[in-house]
Order: sequence, then structure tokens, then C-alpha cells
Amino acid sequence: MYVLRLGHRPGRDKRVTTHVALVARAFGASGFVMEGEDRMVIESIEKVKEIWGRNDFVVETTNNGKSYVTQWRRNGGKVVHLTMYGEGLNSKVEEMRRVSPILLVVGAEKVKGWYYKNVDYNIAVGHQPHSEVASVAVFLDRVYMGAELDIQNSDAKLRIIPQRAGKRVVRVGS
Amino acid sequence: MYVLRLGHRPGRDKRVTTHVALVARAFGASGFVMEGEDRMVIESIEKVKEIWGRNDFVVETTNNGKSYVTQWRRNGGKVVHLTMYGEGLNSKVEEMRRVSPILLVVGAEKVKGWYYKNVDYNIAVGHQPHSEVASVAVFLDRVYMGAELDIQNSDAKLRIIPQRAGKRVVRVGS
Repeated sequence: MYVLRLGHRPGRDKRVTTHVALVARAFGASGFVMEGEDRMVIESIEKVKEIWGRNDFVVETTNNGKSYVTQWRRNGGKVVHLTMYGEGLNSKVEEMRRVSPILLVVGAEKVKGWYYKNVDYNIAVGHQPHSEVASVAVFLDRVYMGAELDIQNSDAKLRIIPQRAGKRVVRVGS
Repeated sequence: MYVLRLGHRPGRDKRVTTHVALVARAFGASGFVMEGEDRMVIESIEKVKEIWGRNDFVVETTNNGKSYVTQWRRNGGKVVHLTMYGEGLNSKVEEMRRVSPILLVVGAEKVKGWYYKNVDYNIAVGHQPHSEVASVAVFLDRVYMGAELDIQNSDAKLRIIPQRAGKRVVRVGS
């Protein structure tokens, strides 16, 4: 699964887009695509990969989200747009587990009507306004059934030893 | 359950803190507490409540997160700090469902060592760096077992009719 973040505005969206990308990586997606250019976002993700692993996690940019969506479908993939106006996740989650490969699309504030009509699914992680970061996290957590939370990456330099209180981190890589 | 956001810095944290607050509301928490002052964050949440309901959702600020935590415990509540260094959520989620009332604590970038030692639980929503927005969302989704996603608020002015494509919103309140 790849996560596509539409309409990134450098400066204004920097932190939220970075959170979306880090969630994509941490919750088991294979890649993150940003519509727009922002070196600071890309550098943040690459730095996390270097320390915490997942060199295989793809980070890309595109200047045209519509083309990216169209191409994904042309290659046989399915596109899932997360929106509070869509069909409830609870009713669709089993179907989502059978669909592959998924391009998971989230917008910034306003997503163009084109996307609603030209994706395979419009799915709502709740029908309330909240956060694209939360939507991506909960979608991935449900589709992967929680298994992603226990992943330790073999190519990480640091690894956390879970603690009841305090922090314990060990160096594992070179 | 209440969600406490530590160390809010106006300006810099505005959007991420707003996302945390909106997630708290949308995923079924009873209240949101911000350490710090930021009228813009409070106004965003109050506006969402006005349109989408949940007038019962409490929004507060505190100038001292430590006192808030101490007082919560003194009143018989339990405090859960979300941190990548804590015990994995998968192993603790059933226990979390039995604990009440919970104060769920998330930091901004760096959380002081005091919190690790003076809370009841340090819980990791994955042991990877990602987002406090995602952590709060997944914690609530797991503890409430997804039921929160189908909530429609009786005091909302607008209600979404889920659609396969497009948007449909009806006016329900006065």
C-alpha cells in the first residue's frame, strides 16, 4: 500500500504532512507520495529511515495527483480516498483487506470533486471532521489488524526495549 | 476519558494540537485539555462542536500539566502516557478497556522524565516515531473497539449521509 498526500503547501502543511508520512512508514505502508515539493518533509522522513530502519520505504513526489491516481488504476491497482463523506470504514474494512495494491489518498483541507468520482472507494474513518493523520493511522491499523505495531526493522540502527517507565534504546546496527 | 496535550506552543503547534483535539472529540473522548493558552485552537474546536455536535465535549486549558496529572490520580483516575518507549498497545489493550477514568497524555516533541515516572501506564502505539495525532486516534479506536466511528451526535446541526461517491449533508438541527 502507498499513501498519497494531495495538495501539500510548503510551510503551512509541513508538520501535518510529515506526520502523515511517518504514520505511513510506521504503520506498514510500502511508500509515501507527496503532491508538491518540500525538501524539509522529505529530509525528515529520510532521517527517520536512516535511524529507525525501513530503507525499503519509498518516498516520492508528484506534481499531479490526478495523473498519479489514473496511472495507479491503469496498472491494476485500486485507489481508496479517505473522506468523512464516504462509506463507513466499519462496513468496508473486510473488503479493504482483500483489495491490493491500494493507493490510499488523503487531502489537505479541500479535495477536488474529481477524486470522489475517479477513485475506486471513498471511505470514511468516522463521519466527523478530525485529521488526515488519524485517518491514515486507523485505516492501516484496521487493515493490518494491529500486527504493524509490533514490527521491529532489521535495518534499524536503534531499537526500543519497551519499558513500564523510562526509556531504553539499544544500538543494533552499524 | 480525557486527552491532555502537553507543552503546546502557540503558532508552531496550532495545527497539530487542533488535530489532537478534533480526534479526541471524534473518537469518543469526553474532554480535551491543553497545557498552554491558544485562543485559535479553542475556537476551532468550539466551532466544530457548534456545527457537528457534542456540546458535552469539555475543552479546557491548564498552565501546569504535572498538577493536572497529580490531581487526576488523587481523584481516583488513572493516567496513561502515550510514548514509543512504553509497553506495546497490543499487549495492554484489554487492560486499558477495564481502566477508568483515563487521562490520556501526549506530548509535543519532548516530554519531561517526570511524566514517565508519575503516570500509571506508559503505552506505545508502536515503537516507531510517528505522530501524537495517530497515537490518540488508534488508542481510542482500540479501546472503544471501533464503535466510536459510527456515532451520530443528536445535537449536530449537520449530518453526513454516507456516499459511495460525492458528498451528501443534511441539516438536522435548528
